[in-house]
Amino acid sequence: MKAKFSSKDEFDKIFFPRSVAIVGASENILKAGTRFLKPFLKMGFKGDIYAINPNAESAFNCQGYSKITDVPGHIDHVVVCVPSMHIPSIIQQCVDKSVNSVVIFSSGFSESGTEDGRLLEEEIVRLSRDSHLRIIGPNCMGVYCPSGGVSFRDDLPERGGPVALISQSGGVAITTVLTANERNLYFSKVISYGNECDLRSSEVIEYLSDDDETSIIMQYIEGTKDGSEFLSALKKASLKKPVVLLKGGVTDAGTRAVTSHTGALSGMAETWSAVIQQSGAIQTYSVEEFVDTTLAFNLIKPPQGRNLGVVSVSGGLGVNLSDLAIRMGFNMPEFSADVKKQLGRFINAPGTGVHNPVDMAVTFFGTENFKHVYNQLERDDSVDIILMHLCMEYIVRFKEIIPNLDELIVSAIAEGLLALKKPFVMILPHTIQDDKRKKVENQLLEQKIPTYPTIERALISINHCMSYYEMRDKR
Amino acid sequence: MKAKFSSKDEFDKIFFPRSVAIVGASENILKAGTRFLKPFLKMGFKGDIYAINPNAESAFNCQGYSKITDVPGHIDHVVVCVPSMHIPSIIQQCVDKSVNSVVIFSSGFSESGTEDGRLLEEEIVRLSRDSHLRIIGPNCMGVYCPSGGVSFRDDLPERGGPVALISQSGGVAITTVLTANERNLYFSKVISYGNECDLRSSEVIEYLSDDDETSIIMQYIEGTKDGSEFLSALKKASLKKPVVLLKGGVTDAGTRAVTSHTGALSGMAETWSAVIQQSGAIQTYSVEEFVDTTLAFNLIKPPQGRNLGVVSVSGGLGVNLSDLAIRMGFNMPEFSADVKKQLGRFINAPGTGVHNPVDMAVTFFGTENFKHVYNQLERDDSVDIILMHLCMEYIVRFKEIIPNLDELIVSAIAEGLLALKKPFVMILPHTIQDDKRKKVENQLLEQKIPTYPTIERALISINHCMSYYEMRDKR
Repeated sequence: MKAKFSSKDEFDKIFFPRSVAIVGASENILKAGTRFLKPFLKMGFKGDIYAINPNAESAFNCQGYSKITDVPGHIDHVVVCVPSMHIPSIIQQCVDKSVNSVVIFSSGFSESGTEDGRLLEEEIVRLSRDSHLRIIGPNCMGVYCPSGGVSFRDDLPERGGPVALISQSGGVAITTVLTANERNLYFSKVISYGNECDLRSSEVIEYLSDDDETSIIMQYIEGTKDGSEFLSALKKASLKKPVVLLKGGVTDAGTRAVTSHTGALSGMAETWSAVIQQSGAIQTYSVEEFVDTTLAFNLIKPPQGRNLGVVSVSGGLGVNLSDLAIRMGFNMPEFSADVKKQLGRFINAPGTGVHNPVDMAVTFFGTENFKHVYNQLERDDSVDIILMHLCMEYIVRFKEIIPNLDELIVSAIAEGLLALKKPFVMILPHTIQDDKRKKVENQLLEQKIPTYPTIERALISINHCMSYYEMRDKR
Repeated sequence: MKAKFSSKDEFDKIFFPRSVAIVGASENILKAGTRFLKPFLKMGFKGDIYAINPNAESAFNCQGYSKITDVPGHIDHVVVCVPSMHIPSIIQQCVDKSVNSVVIFSSGFSESGTEDGRLLEEEIVRLSRDSHLRIIGPNCMGVYCPSGGVSFRDDLPERGGPVALISQSGGVAITTVLTANERNLYFSKVISYGNECDLRSSEVIEYLSDDDETSIIMQYIEGTKDGSEFLSALKKASLKKPVVLLKGGVTDAGTRAVTSHTGALSGMAETWSAVIQQSGAIQTYSVEEFVDTTLAFNLIKPPQGRNLGVVSVSGGLGVNLSDLAIRMGFNMPEFSADVKKQLGRFINAPGTGVHNPVDMAVTFFGTENFKHVYNQLERDDSVDIILMHLCMEYIVRFKEIIPNLDELIVSAIAEGLLALKKPFVMILPHTIQDDKRKKVENQLLEQKIPTYPTIERALISINHCMSYYEMRDKR
């Protein structure tokens, strides 16, 4: 195994290079290289960008050269998007030019399952072995770091955030980032590392666990060549910040699919689950759960226990929420007599209820009631977490009577919830037109109110948070 | 217990009345009665509509009277939205006027938990006992039947469909209808029956099981006064068409919430689950699952087994789909050697894979490839159900190269899937902007392609379908 970066500075340069060269970039937008050059322009990358192509053509005002070694200035980082057979010579050029890091997007290496692919991968590792060059990939998307102006897709936002993502799959990296963005979650650093021929995910975890820009680490992993190094990195990182994992290949069929995807040895599902649990990382099972859980770590305050105080505007949905909560290991305590009495001062129209779940029914019209209800639940010692379930469909229909009712309610809810010391979670289901719902969700998320589309997804996310904090307190 | 309707005609009149009177309706849009009158106008109700209010004011061109008995013509159906204390006298008027059915929206009856409420409910039952009048409610939304021009909310669509819904909760009825509409599912008949003081849900199930407009029955139930009658109706109906249930109060906390909601005796969770399973109905646990499952019964052909053939455009997400499928009891068979060979003729670019799941990767650009892939999976005897997982985020970014790529892909997928004899399901996750995704989802659903937002929700729905067909084949 190759030596690690000798300093944090060298690792930093992967995310904050001063100059980059894109091999395979030209003015032709059909070329993969061009599609990797344009994101740097879109992100406003501040350093020099060079386009490397056979005709030394400039591309989108970036100076063109036919070889990396022809570039006059220094190059920190290279992205390679040309057929695999050309790659050994490019790696040699990177070594000769003292490049710090190279991303190999191209596939056709060990993941192909062919002897040729395996040998080609061995060759590029051998060529770089005695140099400072670190290889990311091959068969990967590479690096996205908004604060460094680095990106691998031109639809990723310039806006950064507190989440880092390490993904063995480029596709999962893209899907995860975009899914997270839709939930107002933004990224500090993303690295898609593919076949992991040189730079290993455990090194990245270690780096990110000390990264001030990052408060939560997400990782999609299919397999690893060194389980004990990975476990050790995961353990150390989990003590410092939450690590949320999505493991690809936790069944035989999934493992088989992994083999033809990144060629990793994904191993036995049971072993992996045990290892992950032992490490203190949180295992999730779908992209949605992966993102939901990260959102929870970002916005939900650590709960002190599993006692929910629920506020609903619909009796039936309050019943359903209670059922789901109990089935998932939460409690729905009875409120104290005094809290019920105080709730009854405001929540007393026909059809309302002041038990847990509180059924506000039509009293949501009095938007000041939200604050009163939340404050009572905040007062009640039996309640650890406050959940609000909002049915937009009961509100939009009253637009005729109070045209801006939904805005009034959203701001009343936000104001009420944000004043609480206890953790709170909002559930805003996909009942009505997605565009209206989306607007309200964005408003809530922008105000740092953790908002989920279904009851189950909210509860699973809270559960994951609690497991993490319980584990950390024990260690 | 009161006698049932003596003929189907009388039951029909609940959904297809020739004339209706709304008690509490006026020109004042703040009045609940007015909010129940306007939906009839919006639906283009063809018969006479009367507004009953103390001043005999007309409302929105509907003739006003101060009493039901003052109306000169016959009245089939009455909706009552006035405080509960006035209701006995209105019921007496309905009896005197030989009204067929009355919906009591008002609450303040047995669900209130008070002795007064209980007595008031007893009184209205007593007043109507010897008449033909059937009472729906109290504490309910009543009836929605697009083909009859009847509705209880002015945002419910005029478009009808094959689904019937019986709901003890008015709120759940509204939420379910609107959630279903968003998924292109429309309704034949909806009845929200609240406290069930007279018309019982078992009678409605029996009626709907013979209703030609209805091919799937949904029911939200919190409790019932006659379990054996309910079970018997459910059993008979399940043999004729799928019955999808959402039971409110399957835990102690849920049961407690039910008590303050409709006052029903929701009973022990275990008993209920056993009863439901025994009946052949399908039990679901959230509004989303309730609607997802109904969508499956509406659009997925009965599968012959649990062997999935999966097509994906992302390796990593194909891996995740395989994992989730196996964990949920499905199989991911190996394709036959010949099918793999034939797949390889089209799906052969770097990064693609012709195992199960098929990873089309960039070959989705050749939109004709979708049809080739589906046809191979149709040919393979080991495959029972074809699943397509589409990541819109890989497609939208190529708009620069092929501006109408997403339209081309959607029509290629639709054309390919609709030509299949085997059942197929589409998964279209919420990764990118909801409005773009929604447009594509609508296009697919309009073409009768069952489309789900997450892998889990698709698989749970398929599972429910299979359980139903297996049960029915056994009986």
